[in-house]
Amino acid sequence: MAQNTVEKTPVTMLGLGAMGTALARTWLAAGHPLTVWNRTPARAAALAAEGARVADTAAEAVAANTLIVVCLLDDTSVDEVLAGTDLADRDLVNLTTSTPAQARARAEWARERGAHYLDGGIMAVPPMIGVPEAGGYVFYSGSRGLFERHQETLAVPVGTTYVGEDAGFAALHDVALLSAMYGMFAGAAHAFALIRKEDIDPASLAPLLVDWLVAMAPAVHQTADHLRSGDYTNGVVSNLAMQVAGTPTFLSTAEEQGVSPQLLSPYFELMRRRLAEGSGEEDLTGVIDLLVH
Amino acid sequence: MAQNTVEKTPVTMLGLGAMGTALARTWLAAGHPLTVWNRTPARAAALAAEGARVADTAAEAVAANTLIVVCLLDDTSVDEVLAGTDLADRDLVNLTTSTPAQARARAEWARERGAHYLDGGIMAVPPMIGVPEAGGYVFYSGSRGLFERHQETLAVPVGTTYVGEDAGFAALHDVALLSAMYGMFAGAAHAFALIRKEDIDPASLAPLLVDWLVAMAPAVHQTADHLRSGDYTNGVVSNLAMQVAGTPTFLSTAEEQGVSPQLLSPYFELMRRRLAEGSGEEDLTGVIDLLVH
Repeated sequence: MAQNTVEKTPVTMLGLGAMGTALARTWLAAGHPLTVWNRTPARAAALAAEGARVADTAAEAVAANTLIVVCLLDDTSVDEVLAGTDLADRDLVNLTTSTPAQARARAEWARERGAHYLDGGIMAVPPMIGVPEAGGYVFYSGSRGLFERHQETLAVPVGTTYVGEDAGFAALHDVALLSAMYGMFAGAAHAFALIRKEDIDPASLAPLLVDWLVAMAPAVHQTADHLRSGDYTNGVVSNLAMQVAGTPTFLSTAEEQGVSPQLLSPYFELMRRRLAEGSGEEDLTGVIDLLVH
Repeated sequence: MAQNTVEKTPVTMLGLGAMGTALARTWLAAGHPLTVWNRTPARAAALAAEGARVADTAAEAVAANTLIVVCLLDDTSVDEVLAGTDLADRDLVNLTTSTPAQARARAEWARERGAHYLDGGIMAVPPMIGVPEAGGYVFYSGSRGLFERHQETLAVPVGTTYVGEDAGFAALHDVALLSAMYGMFAGAAHAFALIRKEDIDPASLAPLLVDWLVAMAPAVHQTADHLRSGDYTNGVVSNLAMQVAGTPTFLSTAEEQGVSPQLLSPYFELMRRRLAEGSGEEDLTGVIDLLVH
């Protein structure tokens, strides 16, 4: 290893799935001394050839360094892998996918064991790791001190966005953004389904679809303003009454094209319910309140 | 009126709702002689003051010019308004919201009456009309000759995108894009619902949401490539099996946050169905085939 590695923070990485391996590689490439452990030792072998030290047990890996990064299958795996390790005074960064409640419970669990805890939600797929121009990043929440201590190291594989001391906020932001993405994909699936039997090239629809979605995404800012102010009518151009009046065209078109409306109709149904409450002058923000109980 | 108006194509505009009025204004401002008619005459008065000629009847308005633009409430209104007008040799541009089947039937109806027919689907709201930087446009389909003859005039209020001789294609593209947008809005509604009871400012989530949606929208290009090739596994990074494995986190998070999963679960259900068919190595494209019957 190059002599400059002595200045770089040593990292312990537990979990070498596709994501863990991608993260580990970037720290190795940047000259961070790296200790790895994986339940299946074969996955560590490739990294050993690149300069990583392979620990025989999770406990040994945790003992090796202060900064411990965990990227496992799920929250139960975190329990299993970290059982029997000594986390006292460790800086534990948990990138394992979890719900906000799991992250909060894990933070408390870590605190009881004397560790500092930072939870992460990864907004990237493995090929985006180590490729800054790919735009991926990790939401972090929990110990601000830990985040500030290791921000530079954490930023080596992918961008960082700290969203608060509540350990559940990283997972919450992660799930919120990915949920919105699935909604967008569902809408795009409906769009492609509509032209499936027509003489229209999906590749000619795609750029129109992308441009339109990109142009409409900023409407989300108005939603946020309305949620903050509680006034859902401010600056509304196309109000709920007008939009509900337009929905039969969407449903009839789906029927004409032989497409199930199941991905659109739940949203339209909520729009109708909100309108029935006398909110015709609002935009679509009121639908959000119908979702929360 | 300025002397250069003699060179501009005269336009007849039927229907002066918010959209029709916005369109009419741009033609007047650009010096096109304009004849208007509206069921409720009061709406025409403001335009008369700006230089429009107000016809007493729809028949008189249709007789006045060759280029007839119709922007009415719905397809039934088009029937009612154009009954008793002489459409022979007219260039009829119908911007009334309709389904693809309605547009095709209207094209045939116009042909029987000796008119050329162009159908339009407006991808804009009234405030975007006459504001090129707002990026709105109209999908046109039907008579290519009519479109080419009047493209310059049609481009005065808002951009034009011709999508084929099939008169139904404009409505189909319009509905497809707007459907995708509603899917995106549904996803964003779910995202905002997730943070509704948390100490997270919606205005801090909004830019993260917009950036993420904008970054993920181009995934639609891969969907299009897969639909063209029929191979839904090509270049897949996060496959269906992995994505279905992630869905419990989304549903559990919704439950933790007291949010109904109704806007997400139909898409997840289709993902599971497609996976059960043995398509774990695909991306999400296969969901589209489950929608079409």
